[in-house]
Amino acid sequence: MRIAELSRESGVPVPTIKYYVREGLLPGGRLTSPNQAQYDEAHLHRLKLIRALVDVGELSIAETKDVLASIGSPGLTLHETLGKAQVATIPHRKTHVGEEALEAATREVEDLIARRGWQVRATNPARQWLAEVIATLRALGQDDCLTLIDIYADAVERVAEADVHTILQRPDVDSMLEGVVAGTILGDAMLAALRRLAHANASAEAAQPTAPDPRLQQRADP
Amino acid sequence: MRIAELSRESGVPVPTIKYYVREGLLPGGRLTSPNQAQYDEAHLHRLKLIRALVDVGELSIAETKDVLASIGSPGLTLHETLGKAQVATIPHRKTHVGEEALEAATREVEDLIARRGWQVRATNPARQWLAEVIATLRALGQDDCLTLIDIYADAVERVAEADVHTILQRPDVDSMLEGVVAGTILGDAMLAALRRLAHANASAEAAQPTAPDPRLQQRADP
Repeated sequence: MRIAELSRESGVPVPTIKYYVREGLLPGGRLTSPNQAQYDEAHLHRLKLIRALVDVGELSIAETKDVLASIGSPGLTLHETLGKAQVATIPHRKTHVGEEALEAATREVEDLIARRGWQVRATNPARQWLAEVIATLRALGQDDCLTLIDIYADAVERVAEADVHTILQRPDVDSMLEGVVAGTILGDAMLAALRRLAHANASAEAAQPTAPDPRLQQRADP
Repeated sequence: MRIAELSRESGVPVPTIKYYVREGLLPGGRLTSPNQAQYDEAHLHRLKLIRALVDVGELSIAETKDVLASIGSPGLTLHETLGKAQVATIPHRKTHVGEEALEAATREVEDLIARRGWQVRATNPARQWLAEVIATLRALGQDDCLTLIDIYADAVERVAEADVHTILQRPDVDSMLEGVVAGTILGDAMLAALRRLAHANASAEAAQPTAPDPRLQQRADP
């Protein structure tokens, strides 16, 4: 198909498609004349994946590029390949917490990993990510939220087992890799959206007349 | 303190502080002369919250402004006030999925909410958010990930109950509101980071020599 049709099929404007090609997110089409290129179903599929990561996953263009580049690195075991794609889904961040606070939080992460018996490489950047979140919550004085960390860990343990089990049932490496990328990024959004719905429910339950917390029905004015 | 000290204490550059004041995220200081303003601990605290939402929560400036504006709306019950802050934590998105696909996904969300017996208002925008995530996963052909939705819902149900319980134990409405905002946004990041660690562990377990899936130790080249 020509670029106009690719645009129609995907809902992505032509200039945006050209931008993705220029930035190396989408392979160029097959040139049929100096000014014309042909695109196929693989381009359409990749374009949908890019839009999902950018629009729903809220990744930046640079992050999306890294994630896509992680799909397909030869010479690794499947465990390593999936791990590489997984690591690419960790957002780029600039640390703003102090070094000392970050070190203390890093020790908390190590304790947590040991306590749960998780096998996680020392170089896995999710350790640093979690340490930054912990240090930020402490800096904001939200220490009570951090007492819930094992409840959170229990919750994701079950989710992650199901994720990995599901991905490993796929028939080939390419679809496993796409599942790691799409399932991890969109799975975060799914968890976040479901958590909002469950919050609304938990608050509604606590606010019922027979509920233990009658303050929820009182005016909130300080 | 003067703006230079506020900058030193918070680690936020002076031009960025001025930008936050201009955009209405941070209240201006108390003018002590035409060119000089004094800032206090409340400014420092608010500045830390802004940076946490922007850097760790990855919110845009517009989203951060909405979230902060939700803190403190008089005349509502506590349940409504907390709900309003909660809704503000839902990211701004542009839908890119087709109308029909979105309608089908919306029905899936309604079924899920009914199946779980959750009390969630029809106007809660988390419904639409979840529908968009579901429609996007379907459009990418990742239907197997969607079979896990009840496992995800189980997981967040426990997390959300603990979240709400923790917030309601706080002594005043202001700290509850800040907890809703910071705990929801940073809690998403905490869940996501923990999920990556648990993924690494689940994959490592599946890759062990005695594990049921020997493919994980084989080269992944297609």
